[in-house]
Amino acid sequence: MRTAYHQELAYFQDRLGDLAQLAETAIQEATKALLDNDIEAARGLTAQGETIARLHRLVDADAVTLIARQQPVASDLRMIVAGLRMSGDLDRMGALARHIAEIVERRHPTPAVPEALRSTIAEMGELAQRMAAKTREALANQDPAAARKLDAQDNAMDRLTTALEPLILACEPPVTLTEAMDLALLGRFYERFADHTVALATRVAYLTGAPQEDLSV
Amino acid sequence: MRTAYHQELAYFQDRLGDLAQLAETAIQEATKALLDNDIEAARGLTAQGETIARLHRLVDADAVTLIARQQPVASDLRMIVAGLRMSGDLDRMGALARHIAEIVERRHPTPAVPEALRSTIAEMGELAQRMAAKTREALANQDPAAARKLDAQDNAMDRLTTALEPLILACEPPVTLTEAMDLALLGRFYERFADHTVALATRVAYLTGAPQEDLSV
Repeated sequence: MRTAYHQELAYFQDRLGDLAQLAETAIQEATKALLDNDIEAARGLTAQGETIARLHRLVDADAVTLIARQQPVASDLRMIVAGLRMSGDLDRMGALARHIAEIVERRHPTPAVPEALRSTIAEMGELAQRMAAKTREALANQDPAAARKLDAQDNAMDRLTTALEPLILACEPPVTLTEAMDLALLGRFYERFADHTVALATRVAYLTGAPQEDLSV
Repeated sequence: MRTAYHQELAYFQDRLGDLAQLAETAIQEATKALLDNDIEAARGLTAQGETIARLHRLVDADAVTLIARQQPVASDLRMIVAGLRMSGDLDRMGALARHIAEIVERRHPTPAVPEALRSTIAEMGELAQRMAAKTREALANQDPAAARKLDAQDNAMDRLTTALEPLILACEPPVTLTEAMDLALLGRFYERFADHTVALATRVAYLTGAPQEDLSV
């Protein structure tokens, strides 16, 4: 009975790892679709988003079943509750990647990102993807120092976000109103994606035994 | 023992209700601060946001303690897990109200919303607040039909969101790039706030016994 239980726990963790991999791939592909103005790739993200949402629901259902059937001890319960929250973060990360792709679809055939801002958006996209990769590894290795290791990248994302508005306003030739609106939203989507990777890393710390406040990030 | 347990459960539910009340007040005050260009009120929202975040952490900690100590039966477990998710939604709703207030602070003394768009933004704000109020009532009354009752308002919010971009582009005199960016973000914040009220209402349905898929909205 306990062996089956531990298999279920391990399976639950594996699925979380799958979700983390999907979210990482999604942001990478969304950024590529955005910079390449690739409408087919952007549409592909919608299907991928559904896969992520479905897996998220399965993970959540598993978590509730595990708690109800197995009445887990404290440390396992922490893991499952943290897993429930992580599953929610990863689902949102998938949704944010999809929102980026939706902007590509909405503006096609016009590229959403003007030439002068390509490098900034590329940098935000790459940073978001690297943060997702680090979080996925931290989850796989149950690394309690994961959140701290994201600090430098999180600060870099904050700097990029703060710099974005002046860059948009200083563009030559000036951006259109539509471009300005899209860029403001894109900046917001990458920033939120990064926030979720930090929240995930903090939850990894929680499930390895960090103070209780960390649960509710 | 069981009596103490049921008191704790009732207390947990009451705190969720408090959070729902705070989120509703926050969006109302944020919209007012935005339309009145009231910097003091906007700053007040930051303090209020901290109150919401703190209560959210308490609710989460209570939920984990309840599960660990009481090993609740299936229906109570559903309620507590749904409560954990609701607490997360309400915390995000508070954060979105704060983001609206931050735009007021960033642009002050210039009003963030140009005259021509005041009525649309006022309508979004009022709708968001009414949706929050309905969700709070549904939570208090454990109304399984809550999500359905939000349908009309959710559709109205979708229409307003879709209409916003053409309205921004058609403004006379034309909006500035900064105004366009702020308005795009404001539209997004109200839309997300409304999404969370729908998610909350769906969780109320779940905890009263609706199908399991509803958990993971």
